[in-house]
Amino acid sequence: MPADNLNLIQRLNAELAKIPLVDSHSHVPGPDPVSRTLDDILGYHYYTELAHSTGMSKDCLAKDHDPAARCREILSHLPKLKNTAQYRWFTHICRDFLGFQGGHPNETHAEQLWHEARTVFSRPDWEQTVWKKTNLACVFLTNDFDDALEGFDTTRYIPCLRTDDLVFHLHDPAVRNRLEKATAIAPTNAAKTRQAIDKLFVHFKAKGARACAISLPPSFTPAPVSDAAIDRALQNPTPGSTELAQGIFWILAEHCRDHHLPFDLMIGVNRKVYAGGVFQGQDLFDRRTSLVQYAALFNAFPSVTFPVSVLDGAQNQELASHAWIFPNVIAHGHWWYANVPSIIERDLRDRLNAVPAVKLIGYYSDAYKLEFILPKCSMFRGLLSRILANDFVAPGTLTEEEAVGVAGQLLEGNSRRIFRLPATGPGPA
Amino acid sequence: MPADNLNLIQRLNAELAKIPLVDSHSHVPGPDPVSRTLDDILGYHYYTELAHSTGMSKDCLAKDHDPAARCREILSHLPKLKNTAQYRWFTHICRDFLGFQGGHPNETHAEQLWHEARTVFSRPDWEQTVWKKTNLACVFLTNDFDDALEGFDTTRYIPCLRTDDLVFHLHDPAVRNRLEKATAIAPTNAAKTRQAIDKLFVHFKAKGARACAISLPPSFTPAPVSDAAIDRALQNPTPGSTELAQGIFWILAEHCRDHHLPFDLMIGVNRKVYAGGVFQGQDLFDRRTSLVQYAALFNAFPSVTFPVSVLDGAQNQELASHAWIFPNVIAHGHWWYANVPSIIERDLRDRLNAVPAVKLIGYYSDAYKLEFILPKCSMFRGLLSRILANDFVAPGTLTEEEAVGVAGQLLEGNSRRIFRLPATGPGPA
Amino acid sequence: MPADNLNLIQRLNAELAKIPLVDSHSHVPGPDPVSRTLDDILGYHYYTELAHSTGMSKDCLAKDHDPAARCREILSHLPKLKNTAQYRWFTHICRDFLGFQGGHPNETHAEQLWHEARTVFSRPDWEQTVWKKTNLACVFLTNDFDDALEGFDTTRYIPCLRTDDLVFHLHDPAVRNRLEKATAIAPTNAAKTRQAIDKLFVHFKAKGARACAISLPPSFTPAPVSDAAIDRALQNPTPGSTELAQGIFWILAEHCRDHHLPFDLMIGVNRKVYAGGVFQGQDLFDRRTSLVQYAALFNAFPSVTFPVSVLDGAQNQELASHAWIFPNVIAHGHWWYANVPSIIERDLRDRLNAVPAVKLIGYYSDAYKLEFILPKCSMFRGLLSRILANDFVAPGTLTEEEAVGVAGQLLEGNSRRIFRLPATGPGPA
Repeated sequence: MPADNLNLIQRLNAELAKIPLVDSHSHVPGPDPVSRTLDDILGYHYYTELAHSTGMSKDCLAKDHDPAARCREILSHLPKLKNTAQYRWFTHICRDFLGFQGGHPNETHAEQLWHEARTVFSRPDWEQTVWKKTNLACVFLTNDFDDALEGFDTTRYIPCLRTDDLVFHLHDPAVRNRLEKATAIAPTNAAKTRQAIDKLFVHFKAKGARACAISLPPSFTPAPVSDAAIDRALQNPTPGSTELAQGIFWILAEHCRDHHLPFDLMIGVNRKVYAGGVFQGQDLFDRRTSLVQYAALFNAFPSVTFPVSVLDGAQNQELASHAWIFPNVIAHGHWWYANVPSIIERDLRDRLNAVPAVKLIGYYSDAYKLEFILPKCSMFRGLLSRILANDFVAPGTLTEEEAVGVAGQLLEGNSRRIFRLPATGPGPA
Repeated sequence: MPADNLNLIQRLNAELAKIPLVDSHSHVPGPDPVSRTLDDILGYHYYTELAHSTGMSKDCLAKDHDPAARCREILSHLPKLKNTAQYRWFTHICRDFLGFQGGHPNETHAEQLWHEARTVFSRPDWEQTVWKKTNLACVFLTNDFDDALEGFDTTRYIPCLRTDDLVFHLHDPAVRNRLEKATAIAPTNAAKTRQAIDKLFVHFKAKGARACAISLPPSFTPAPVSDAAIDRALQNPTPGSTELAQGIFWILAEHCRDHHLPFDLMIGVNRKVYAGGVFQGQDLFDRRTSLVQYAALFNAFPSVTFPVSVLDGAQNQELASHAWIFPNVIAHGHWWYANVPSIIERDLRDRLNAVPAVKLIGYYSDAYKLEFILPKCSMFRGLLSRILANDFVAPGTLTEEEAVGVAGQLLEGNSRRIFRLPATGPGPA
Repeated sequence: MPADNLNLIQRLNAELAKIPLVDSHSHVPGPDPVSRTLDDILGYHYYTELAHSTGMSKDCLAKDHDPAARCREILSHLPKLKNTAQYRWFTHICRDFLGFQGGHPNETHAEQLWHEARTVFSRPDWEQTVWKKTNLACVFLTNDFDDALEGFDTTRYIPCLRTDDLVFHLHDPAVRNRLEKATAIAPTNAAKTRQAIDKLFVHFKAKGARACAISLPPSFTPAPVSDAAIDRALQNPTPGSTELAQGIFWILAEHCRDHHLPFDLMIGVNRKVYAGGVFQGQDLFDRRTSLVQYAALFNAFPSVTFPVSVLDGAQNQELASHAWIFPNVIAHGHWWYANVPSIIERDLRDRLNAVPAVKLIGYYSDAYKLEFILPKCSMFRGLLSRILANDFVAPGTLTEEEAVGVAGQLLEGNSRRIFRLPATGPGPA
């Protein structure tokens, strides 16, 4: 590309930074959204798992380990990761939030970073500062089905009903007890389970929930299950019961339809593949899976919008093609192992060249603390700016203004429409 | 890349535009090849399905709906697609053929475009004009097995025997009746079916057919079937009979061998996945498929050339590797959901870096009307020019002249050799 | 990218050429490492299979065919391959080793190249010359389990225990006899086979072996097998026995653990897919495979390092993600059909952006003669320089010096650590 495009990319990037971000999926805890110590930053599973993968023992990850010592230990392994995008999110945080000036943070900076983080994170306006620096409109949470959804502003921290436990762990008495406790209904058969799930939806909707969400293994294929079969499965619930998982999943889809909630599908994760891995660092995927497994679902619920994420970038064309054909399928962000700049760039280019922009939600942070939204979204905006410049503005397909408009759809507008959010706000103001 | 490459790309692109195009697969109707109204353009399934996918009701697609009103309706949805390559083909047509000067065509241009199309398309030399502007050498059709192949110049509009119905729908009495009507032979057993199919090949060959073609689902695996098994399957034909499909397919391959016809395989489509979709907008794919499923076929018919298309770009390396190893496998164009500029660029780069140029047919339009060949092929030539410039000429691997020679193979020469076309002509002259 | 990056890329490439190369996988014969005639170069399966794929009869490949005539025949087909990377390795050899000055070598250069090769390859210091020009530190061999490992310097030519025959052909009496001859133990049951394999490991370790290696079909899934089941399988060994293959494979992994050898897994090859192909030109792959099939293995042997290669670039994200999570999984080079510059560039970018550099072995040559290491590794270094420049140095993520450091890990340092080689040497000196 000509040198000129660099200026164009920079101009676009500057415009994109002005668009308030709707972060449509995160694990930020509503009542406790910002970090308190450096441990909240370096404890993010990306760092613990990568440090472990390059040789760090899991000992320092024990709950009772001294947090400052843990940070020093993790920092001592960071130089081995310095080529990774995950590491760049951390240096971005160090520079933008913690005033770090050096090149690459390592264990010699442990004390300095620990104390600086203490100081910065304890400022009374820290949460507001992060919202402003991030230009955040609102952020979606991941809430357990029995979450009280209290202690936070649900117009900023949008509740989202996470349903993995219901679909894949209802054989577990602990989960059934939680469901009974939350709804006062024991899920002993299909009818009662349906009533209990309805109560959950009523509760979540009343609290401003804007989505139901679930992560799904590569082998899962949604299908309707008769109440009789669900009854049988619930009488003697066993781990891994396909009928139970399919049955509950289908009931959830019915409630998304009846309660007008989009159903976020995060497709492709195999849990606990690396049994000896760190917390959240045990899961992988299997490319022997296809979105065609979801055809019955997409056909059966035309009024339910399904924002779909895939874990394997090599499945991106399936996602783009399904979003191209099915009115109710949305290509949703770049998930986890596909949340890598070179993979995002490839997948996003393919989506932008093939799928109407209204069918794309550009990005979500998947963050566990608010501080991670800025570095992750900055990475995405940089990639989006480059694609818009090179593939659309430079060849004369879109004007700069139109390109910024497309970015606005991907970063804010489509999420507002699809998740039925207000047209503006509440944002950092 | 350095700024200089831009000039190089432009020079190459200008040279490539001089190469007469052999369009080796289309759905252009021989007796009715050009558009009559704007409805023939906007009725292309890419627009109806994308408009539907972004919210357009299917009502306006009813046969008896007013065509001008349908065009206005589709145009009203186009702004939502303006980032897509499919939309760029339309704006290319508006500008190059309909004198459209505005930025993005929308419903406010409906009347203007409708009338301009009427005027332009009704010119007596319109068909010739399109041939000239497109620099078209000849275009392959998609002919039903019982097509009379009359009413058109078969040196320009090359007949091609499409065999999906025979392989996958011979259980259907209507299809068996059509076969009997076309050949005067009732396909009641293997021997008679073989005779009937032979008659089809004789007819098509006599009319100048240059290929037999079929699209295949991801699950299909060719294998020889005994006549006894085919006999059984034909006695009580059922939908989805694997033996019947495999048996008829193998008979077709035998006839390709005996009649010296290449057998175009378009691999990977699942039909009617989105049951509520528009016409031609219901099909998708499943990445759980492999070209290795075709090993028995490629081994059994060394004298038959198989131009192979795949629907999923993530299968492109399989295609490149099979064309690299099997003398009778040709990598053929970029099909349907993989016919997206960013996907073509990736797949074409991989093919050009790994597979001898003589084993590559660059592109086919898949067009339903002649007007679409120009915008689609222009897109391809632009991508090919860029790859040749950056990957081959700039690093000194090929001279500009050699690069144009490679392009000539991909756009014209290889198709002439593989499909046994004359060395030149008939072309636009 | 700006024009400046070109200078940066060139600077990096010059620095990378100074890094001594540890070539971690080849088929170079230890006692006969360099070419003797042009036939050793053009007989490389890449040229015979591509020439055959573009129309060359296999007649000239008969053992008793005149080698000079064979070279002329292959050369006559090379112009058809001139767009391929494989061909560029040959022109690189012609220019760098044989003083060839013309554009594209073809049959008119047959005599000249034949005689020049004779002269050059028979120089007494030819082997040393190639080591120097290649800046080679050491090269790994592929040794049959019954190889005496004699007649070469095992500090330069590193023995590697190749185990395909043991795992997939122990049903073959010839293989069992070879094992008995090599170890004086007849593999009649699990216990004896274990003893025999232990003897092989002792022998290989004593001779300086640094790895155990195997290529595996897409369908293979490692799993422990009881000795009783192995006993049964060995009593009546049949081709394709899953229990026998899994059982022997698991025993090999146990010995890798006990003898501290990394276990190179080259995953995904289907043998003899094209039955009529040339020697080594019959194998392909099947993308319906997943690294998740290896989870049990990776979990069971945490102390064994597994350098993993995949045959299909579309499986690269699986490899990157497994190397990201499993401490004992290393992403290893770019194998065979994925050893294509455009595929390497994509796969390497994804690895460098997602996986700690310490978990990556950049490249191995897979060469059959020493002369091929230079052109293949030069190709890789050029791609690595470009990625480091554009993705890391230009955006300010790494300094030039740090980028060269990362390259040093990929080209030399990681292999030295993982394969327990000395910190330096022996190299070309």
